[in-house]
Amino acid sequence: MKPQQKKLAEGSLFTDFYQLTMAQLYLRNKLAEKTVQFDYFFRNYPDYDSHQAGYCINAGMQWLLDWMQDNRFTKKDIDFLRQLSTPAGNRIFYDDFLGWLAKNGNFDAITITAIPEGRVVHPGVPLAIVRGPFAMAQILESALLNHLNYQTLIATRAARIREAGRGGLMIEFGMRRAQADGANAGARAALIGGADFTSNTGLSAVLNLPPKGTHAHSMVQAFIALGMTELDAFQAYADLYPDSCLLVVDTIDTLNSGVPNAVKVFEKLRKKGHKPLGIRLDSGDLAYLAIQSAKMLNEAGFDDTIIFLSNQLDEMVIWQIITQIQKQAPIDGIDADHLIKRLGYGVGTRLITSAGNAALDGIYKLTAVRNQNKWLPAIKLSETPAKILNPGYKNAWRIYDNRQKATADLITLGEEDPRRLDVLNLHHPSEPQTSRTLDKSEISQIEPLLVDFIKEGKLVCDLPSIDQMRKLRDTDLEHLNSGVKRLVNPHRYHVSVSNKLWNLKQRLINSRKKGVQKG
Amino acid sequence: MKPQQKKLAEGSLFTDFYQLTMAQLYLRNKLAEKTVQFDYFFRNYPDYDSHQAGYCINAGMQWLLDWMQDNRFTKKDIDFLRQLSTPAGNRIFYDDFLGWLAKNGNFDAITITAIPEGRVVHPGVPLAIVRGPFAMAQILESALLNHLNYQTLIATRAARIREAGRGGLMIEFGMRRAQADGANAGARAALIGGADFTSNTGLSAVLNLPPKGTHAHSMVQAFIALGMTELDAFQAYADLYPDSCLLVVDTIDTLNSGVPNAVKVFEKLRKKGHKPLGIRLDSGDLAYLAIQSAKMLNEAGFDDTIIFLSNQLDEMVIWQIITQIQKQAPIDGIDADHLIKRLGYGVGTRLITSAGNAALDGIYKLTAVRNQNKWLPAIKLSETPAKILNPGYKNAWRIYDNRQKATADLITLGEEDPRRLDVLNLHHPSEPQTSRTLDKSEISQIEPLLVDFIKEGKLVCDLPSIDQMRKLRDTDLEHLNSGVKRLVNPHRYHVSVSNKLWNLKQRLINSRKKGVQKG
Repeated sequence: MKPQQKKLAEGSLFTDFYQLTMAQLYLRNKLAEKTVQFDYFFRNYPDYDSHQAGYCINAGMQWLLDWMQDNRFTKKDIDFLRQLSTPAGNRIFYDDFLGWLAKNGNFDAITITAIPEGRVVHPGVPLAIVRGPFAMAQILESALLNHLNYQTLIATRAARIREAGRGGLMIEFGMRRAQADGANAGARAALIGGADFTSNTGLSAVLNLPPKGTHAHSMVQAFIALGMTELDAFQAYADLYPDSCLLVVDTIDTLNSGVPNAVKVFEKLRKKGHKPLGIRLDSGDLAYLAIQSAKMLNEAGFDDTIIFLSNQLDEMVIWQIITQIQKQAPIDGIDADHLIKRLGYGVGTRLITSAGNAALDGIYKLTAVRNQNKWLPAIKLSETPAKILNPGYKNAWRIYDNRQKATADLITLGEEDPRRLDVLNLHHPSEPQTSRTLDKSEISQIEPLLVDFIKEGKLVCDLPSIDQMRKLRDTDLEHLNSGVKRLVNPHRYHVSVSNKLWNLKQRLINSRKKGVQKG
Repeated sequence: MKPQQKKLAEGSLFTDFYQLTMAQLYLRNKLAEKTVQFDYFFRNYPDYDSHQAGYCINAGMQWLLDWMQDNRFTKKDIDFLRQLSTPAGNRIFYDDFLGWLAKNGNFDAITITAIPEGRVVHPGVPLAIVRGPFAMAQILESALLNHLNYQTLIATRAARIREAGRGGLMIEFGMRRAQADGANAGARAALIGGADFTSNTGLSAVLNLPPKGTHAHSMVQAFIALGMTELDAFQAYADLYPDSCLLVVDTIDTLNSGVPNAVKVFEKLRKKGHKPLGIRLDSGDLAYLAIQSAKMLNEAGFDDTIIFLSNQLDEMVIWQIITQIQKQAPIDGIDADHLIKRLGYGVGTRLITSAGNAALDGIYKLTAVRNQNKWLPAIKLSETPAKILNPGYKNAWRIYDNRQKATADLITLGEEDPRRLDVLNLHHPSEPQTSRTLDKSEISQIEPLLVDFIKEGKLVCDLPSIDQMRKLRDTDLEHLNSGVKRLVNPHRYHVSVSNKLWNLKQRLINSRKKGVQKG
């Protein structure tokens, strides 16, 4: 796209068309400026077919807020809408609406409370509650889902991969397999969820982090095509980058050419007082090659160089590689723990696409409408009880047990404060018979999860840095039971609703069902 | 991101970091301005686990060219690079390189020949050949792969979904599950590959297409919360959009409330001389509901309204729905063919993420280096013969048999012209014993696939419209054997290399292997 086109495609028109026809309908029916509430939440943890997440890492809000603050309907946007016509040749958008949009087409009246980025989150709990005039809250839907679904999906996957890699160096490499500029949102989310660095240079510049990388196969290929050798190429790299020399050893033959040549170059570096960083394995049986490479490196006295792995890595592949090393390394005379500690991971395609489950099922649903100074709850029925909305003005809490572990998230009505109760009743959100009671003595803390982000368009909180989000993430992960963090078949974390919310929901379901029978 | 940050993240720094360290190394070794050739190709058709594509639809080049023409390294980009340092505290980029980049950091010397967007393409065939100075051709890698991999992936999936839907109305709905702004590239690719329209309003504005959509569940919910009914909401919609009235019938109960209410509204529209568009089914058993809805609509005389389906659709789900309708509709007294012809498809998540295989494995490999006015072929070995590059300066052709069907793609050396030969020898690209001979009499046409796009940065072709790309797509699909187009287990299309290319490859492999043994 040309820059002018990008502006058009990524500005206020970055929305599904029905949001705009809805906004016009709301105006025509005097609903456009009625205050409403939409909840954003996801229904299920990502399910990667052979395994499913037991928690998610929340991400994306800051970039959504930037988008909201930077965009308002421009003359160009409105000109495009004006010339659209129906199959019968009539205009779709009328001047009264387009005039309203020119004046009110911004997010200055929107209020958002949300769970901060980096926090552990669970299904059904509102991650963001949007309140504001119906028309603009409706138009916001597409951009909100676009920003929050993807970044939460990727932050979650990154956390899982970090867990599998036992906190070893992890670099995000996915730009070449991302959805165009989505590479930047993906890299940001990966950095929030688990990656230490990214190879994405522009995004690193924006976040003020150092970008990272190794070298290209094409460097070695070019040296060879010109009559030189892999060793010459390695040496040229070491000469230019003596303090950050990490050599890719698989262009010709990893064990017969790459690693021996790397060792030669490292020996020269050592003589000159430099510390070589290590090698990168990018193809073949990575566990086997890591053990054999470690042998060669150790024999040459390079015990502490990194062995950096890449090639279709994700949490399952890394888990398998580590398991294979634990079994095989001792047989080959290598200390498995020492080897595992020096491993690093370059994670590309399978992280930035969340391979196996490439979308979070997050949704944005109308849950309340304000009329004559009262919040009227809204509901959407479904034949699947688990898919029926939690209606109304709400709040969300996390309950910690006496071991300081998070034991449940609780969704209540907005006016309830569970901290004031002596006994907590935790009701399953869709199964009538399933509930649990917690006495005050079993609870160490009840923490409100939602924070005010913007009030009528104005930022009312300090936006945290990536590093602060990572601290939130680590704290929340420490407070999770290890069963919930299992990579495969995790223990199910409890998300509950209060009795009052349960009763409201039942009342609404019954009245709607009666409505259908009558109708 | 803030607009200034977006500029930084999506400009020339939209690249993997190693491209920049490589560029500096090439400059230091007097290789930066040496002319080289990189080939872009993919190795495998997308494999969606239970099924695999038998062809791909090429897409993405135009936006890559826009990116190349709009971006050059700015002072801000270079300032970021200047302050980066190694773990030992030394600068990574030196002034000579940063000065070179300030002057030469653009794509004005790059030449690209490529296969046009919209065409059917196959593994191993170069979809784009990039020639130019080594440093900038290297830096281009990340953006090129990012643009071309994703759009080709999505255009391919869209073509398959269109095939399953038998050319019925198809609208792209994926923005909310895309990777941030990647939604725009995804929608564009979907429009090239198979979608008739998209709900993405901004992208439609850029391409000058009408955006499409239906209405929101939240409209119906809001009416009900305020004491009105689904019928009131439908009527309000019909009043405002009498010529494009497509009603979403599942907010309360599809068959007991939604469809009967839609029929009431349609009857009023008809009386006023309007033609209602139809209904949308967005949950439940879509095949069953389509049949039952068709019954109700037909009984009321609305035989020709659209029944628009959505909810996790892809080619397999649509195939299954159509099969179920073919079996069940006649039992329920409905003409299956008539019903299938009135179906439309809203395709979201599973198209824009290419669910099941969320990345094309396209790669960008150095295949030749120009030295003293001669092209020296470059190669990268691999233990898997199928992964060894086709080296050197090349060309690509499509061979049509006497039924005008494409029978093979042929990769030759640049100087070869298979149109001059009486007998064509088609060699399997990696199996030594597999080859096939075609006599001139068996061939109706030999078509060159690669077209000059830019020469030293300047556009040298007319860039086609989306509509022209769709025509190319339809022509190419007509020339494919139907076995190749099967959704599941397609017949394998032949991609071959010429004898000369085969011999060059073997010679290079042998000389490199000797090099390793000697080393």
